[in-house]
Amino acid sequence: MRKQVEDFILSLQDQIVSTLEKLDPNAPAFRRDSWVRPGDGGYGRSYVFACPGANESTTSFYEPQTTILEKAGVNISIVRGHLPPAAMRQMRADHNTIPLPDDLPGGLPYSAQGLSLVIHPRNPHAPTVHANYRYFEITEPLKEGSVDSPKLIAWWFGGGSDLTPSYLYEEDAIHFHSTYQQASAPHGSELFPAFKKWCDEYFYITHRQESRGIGGIFFDDLHDGPHERIPSGDSPRTADGIFHLVKDLGAAFLPSYIPILERRHSLAYTPKERRWQLLRRGRYVEFNLVYDRGTKFGLMKLESRVESILISLPEEARWEYRSDIADDPDSEEGKLQAILQKPREWV
Amino acid sequence: MRKQVEDFILSLQDQIVSTLEKLDPNAPAFRRDSWVRPGDGGYGRSYVFACPGANESTTSFYEPQTTILEKAGVNISIVRGHLPPAAMRQMRADHNTIPLPDDLPGGLPYSAQGLSLVIHPRNPHAPTVHANYRYFEITEPLKEGSVDSPKLIAWWFGGGSDLTPSYLYEEDAIHFHSTYQQASAPHGSELFPAFKKWCDEYFYITHRQESRGIGGIFFDDLHDGPHERIPSGDSPRTADGIFHLVKDLGAAFLPSYIPILERRHSLAYTPKERRWQLLRRGRYVEFNLVYDRGTKFGLMKLESRVESILISLPEEARWEYRSDIADDPDSEEGKLQAILQKPREWV
Repeated sequence: MRKQVEDFILSLQDQIVSTLEKLDPNAPAFRRDSWVRPGDGGYGRSYVFACPGANESTTSFYEPQTTILEKAGVNISIVRGHLPPAAMRQMRADHNTIPLPDDLPGGLPYSAQGLSLVIHPRNPHAPTVHANYRYFEITEPLKEGSVDSPKLIAWWFGGGSDLTPSYLYEEDAIHFHSTYQQASAPHGSELFPAFKKWCDEYFYITHRQESRGIGGIFFDDLHDGPHERIPSGDSPRTADGIFHLVKDLGAAFLPSYIPILERRHSLAYTPKERRWQLLRRGRYVEFNLVYDRGTKFGLMKLESRVESILISLPEEARWEYRSDIADDPDSEEGKLQAILQKPREWV
Repeated sequence: MRKQVEDFILSLQDQIVSTLEKLDPNAPAFRRDSWVRPGDGGYGRSYVFACPGANESTTSFYEPQTTILEKAGVNISIVRGHLPPAAMRQMRADHNTIPLPDDLPGGLPYSAQGLSLVIHPRNPHAPTVHANYRYFEITEPLKEGSVDSPKLIAWWFGGGSDLTPSYLYEEDAIHFHSTYQQASAPHGSELFPAFKKWCDEYFYITHRQESRGIGGIFFDDLHDGPHERIPSGDSPRTADGIFHLVKDLGAAFLPSYIPILERRHSLAYTPKERRWQLLRRGRYVEFNLVYDRGTKFGLMKLESRVESILISLPEEARWEYRSDIADDPDSEEGKLQAILQKPREWV
C-alpha cells in the first residue's frame, strides 16, 4: 500500500501543477524544490508558485493583477521514523488500535505519506482552495534477523478538500460540492454527507465563531473497521476500497476547482474587494496558526521543513480592529459572513 | 492594591494615548471603546488607532505614508471572576502558593488588571513596540455573613516592554534598554539583567529559531518571596516596593520609545524596505498566534473580547516561501536577521 500511495501522490502532484501552469502560460513556472530527511527518514517535493514582484512592479497595491495565482503550494512528503511515546499517546485518542505507549518505550516505526495543497488566487472573486490526501501506517518493530515484513499495527487514510471564497458565488459552491458528492457516490452514498459535516466542524475558528470557508469534505482515520462518524453503508470497507475512494477524490480535485478559477480569475474588482479578500486571508492565517492540527504538529517538531508547512499562509493578509466592511447584511461581504456563521448544505 | 493598580493603569493609558495623538495632530484621534463584562465581571477600555483608508486613498501600496502610526492599541482591562479548577492547575505551575484544585472544586475568586499596548508605525525604519503591566490576585471565597475582606491567597505583578524593529539602529536599541535599566536600577541592579534575559527567552519563535524582536524586559510572578529567576538583591521585596518598580517601568515607556519614533517616522524608504517590514510583521503574527500566552489564553475563553486581544496583529503582513531578502549578511535585512538569531546585550 505504501508504494501505491507514493505513486498516486507523486503523479497527482505533477498533474495538478502542470494544469495550473498551463492555465497561466505567461506566469513564472512553479518552483520545484526537493528535500530529503537525514538517515532513511524519507523525502519530499515542494512545488511552489510565488511571484512577489508581480504587485511591486505595478507600483500599486490595488492595481489589476498580473498573474492568476498569488501564492500556491502543492507539496508531497513521504517520511518514516519512530513514533515517540508522547506522540503515540496523542494519536491513541483518535486511533485506538495503537498499543499503549507503556508497552513499547522505544516507540513504533511509522510511515506517513501525503499530498497537501493550497492555492490563493489574486482575484478576490476567485476562491482559495485547500486539499490534502494522506496515508499513515504504524508497524511492529523490525525483528533482528527476520526476513518477513514487520506486522502492520494500524493504518488509516485521511484527507479532504475545502473552498474558501471571499465572495460567494452559489454556483461555485454547488459545483465544488457536487463534484465530490459524485466522486464519492460509487463508494457509498453515506460518505459525502458525513465528510461535509466533518469539514464544517474541523475548519471552524472558535474565537471568531465562524467557519474558515464554505465547506467541502474532510475525513480522517479511514480504515477497514467501523467508524464512529460514518454510517456503516451497504458493503464492508477494505484497504483497497478506501484507497480507491481516496484516488477518486484526488482525481476530482482539478474538476472541482479549475472551472471555478477559470470563470473568476479575470473579473474586475475594486480596492474594497481586495481589502475584504485580505481581511479574509487574515482569518485564514488565524485558523492555520491557532487550530490546524497538521500545522501545529509540524511546527512543534524541530526537524520539520517549516517553509513547506507555512506555504499555506497567503502572500498578504490584513487585520482591522472591529472592521465594519461586512456590517451591511445585504452587501456581498455581509452575505459571505452570514454563510460562514451558519454553514449550508450545497447539494 | 487593586484600587492603586487600577488608578495607575487608567492614568497611564490616558497619558500614552494623548502623547501619541499630539505627535501626529493631522491623523485621526484614537478610537475610545469601553466595554463591560456581564454581572460584576469588570470592564475595559480599548483605545485604538486605525486608519485603513490611509494607504487606499493614496492608491499605491508603496507610496509615502500618510500617518505616523499604522495600527496601535492601548488597552486596559480590569476583570474579576472565579478561576475554574483547570485554570488553577495550569497557574500552579508558575505560582506555587495557589492551593491544589482538589481543595476547592468551586474555584477561587480572582482579579486581573492590566494595561497592554502594541504600536505598529507605518515607516519601516520605525520599530514596533509592545508593553504590558499587570497585577493578579487570588483570594479565599467570600464567607457568608462575614464583613472582613476575603484573605489574599496569592498575588503577583507581571509585565515588560520589548522592541521589534525591521531595521536595526544600534542607538535605538541602546536607548530603549538604557531607559529601562535606569528605571529599574533604584529597585535593585539585579533586576534589569534578569528581565532582559527573560525577554529574550519569552519572545522566541521556536519554529523559526529566531527572536521576535531585539529585546527589552519581561517579568512575571513578581511577589514578596524569593524568585527563581531573580537574584535576591540587597533588600527584601515588598508588595509596595514591587508596585513602585512597576510604576517606574510604566513611566519609562514613553521616554523609552517616543524619541525613537520621532527620529525614524519620516525617513525615506523603498518598496523593498516596506516588503521586508511586512515580512517581519508576518513573523510577529506567527509569534502572537502560536506562542504568546496571553493571546492563546484569551482566545480559549469564550467570554473574551477577541477584537481587543487581536489588536496586537499588524494591519498587514506578508509571507514569502523561502524569501531571499535577508540572504546577504551585509545587507541591512541580513544584519537584523543575525541579531534575531543571536540576542545581544545592548547596555
